[in-house]
Amino acid sequence: MTTPTTDFQRARSADAKQRREVAILDAARRLGAARGIRTVTLTDIAEAVGMHKSALLRYFETREQIFLRLTAQDWREWGPALRASLDGSEDASPAAIGTIVAASLAARPMFCDLLAQAPLNLERNVSLESVREFKLVTLEEVAALTEVLQRLRPGLTPEQTIDLIAAATSLSGAYWQMATPGPEVEKLYRSDPRLAHAVVDVEPRVARTLAAMLEGFERL
Amino acid sequence: MTTPTTDFQRARSADAKQRREVAILDAARRLGAARGIRTVTLTDIAEAVGMHKSALLRYFETREQIFLRLTAQDWREWGPALRASLDGSEDASPAAIGTIVAASLAARPMFCDLLAQAPLNLERNVSLESVREFKLVTLEEVAALTEVLQRLRPGLTPEQTIDLIAAATSLSGAYWQMATPGPEVEKLYRSDPRLAHAVVDVEPRVARTLAAMLEGFERL
Repeated sequence: MTTPTTDFQRARSADAKQRREVAILDAARRLGAARGIRTVTLTDIAEAVGMHKSALLRYFETREQIFLRLTAQDWREWGPALRASLDGSEDASPAAIGTIVAASLAARPMFCDLLAQAPLNLERNVSLESVREFKLVTLEEVAALTEVLQRLRPGLTPEQTIDLIAAATSLSGAYWQMATPGPEVEKLYRSDPRLAHAVVDVEPRVARTLAAMLEGFERL
Repeated sequence: MTTPTTDFQRARSADAKQRREVAILDAARRLGAARGIRTVTLTDIAEAVGMHKSALLRYFETREQIFLRLTAQDWREWGPALRASLDGSEDASPAAIGTIVAASLAARPMFCDLLAQAPLNLERNVSLESVREFKLVTLEEVAALTEVLQRLRPGLTPEQTIDLIAAATSLSGAYWQMATPGPEVEKLYRSDPRLAHAVVDVEPRVARTLAAMLEGFERL
């Protein structure tokens, strides 16, 4: 009877594999949060976790797969947190909802970075299975948010709530990139008065946009 | 008296330089339009224009500078075209303006691609002078559009018109990327019924969003 031992060994090795995956994802998250995910390479991640790059490639296909998994993790964390904030708010006015949603994204800068990178870069260098897995996570979270938003604003159609969530996530991603152009460019914006309007104040702009959308949807 | 000849020679050489620049920009535009700018390298552009890469680097610092120049060209073409469409429209309702703005961007797929790439990639690998030049072009075009929008909808504040143009360009860029994920991923979306909502219909979504913003801004 070798089966029990084999099962035990398999479990132990599956467990070790999972711990390694978590360590890799955590290292990538730390590096990405510190300097923006754009410049983080597979070699950087391997170094941070103390592995050879070739060993790391047994756990993940590409750097993009690692960051796409982090994007999915962040959707899973952000979705429920935002639903709880919305549910807990006594004010369900368009302005209040816009402010809550914008603040929830502004509080997660690395998620904003990932949200902008995902469609441009992350979804383009991974297997179809990875894209499918990622999309199913986002669609589930969007569906759960849709339910809460429709409870708070019964006049909204499902299409309108999806438009709202898509605008919130896409604009927070794009504006975050514009607002974080690196220290040199930031200094340029502040030094040339003609460029004052190039400085993007992400959170209030997203809040105003979402509030207007909510107000407008119910009147169109 | 050698001055006239020298002037003539200088003019001829400046003229030749400019012709070369135009040829490089045109080649980059053709390649970018055909397969998305993401995968177009400096070597590809040099080959298309029949130059060595080292010679091309005498005209442009990086591939990003080439594509940032194309983005500026597109702002210069799109801005006046959209202003003319808005001025020529008999209907200045939020829905009509939303439709006109969304259509003007959807008709320019390469501009949408560039709009998404600019803050993530293009502005990050060029000189500060290139960033300044680019930003001044976009700020001028935004200011001119703001004037037309405020004429059509006198209730809008300057901040609201800037929010509107920023949303129009950023969402058209982001949604275009989502809607153009490559043939493999597109097939995946169409084959898995759970992923039906992953298919983004860019133009109507942007039109609905802008119409709601315009309607809502005047009521907030």
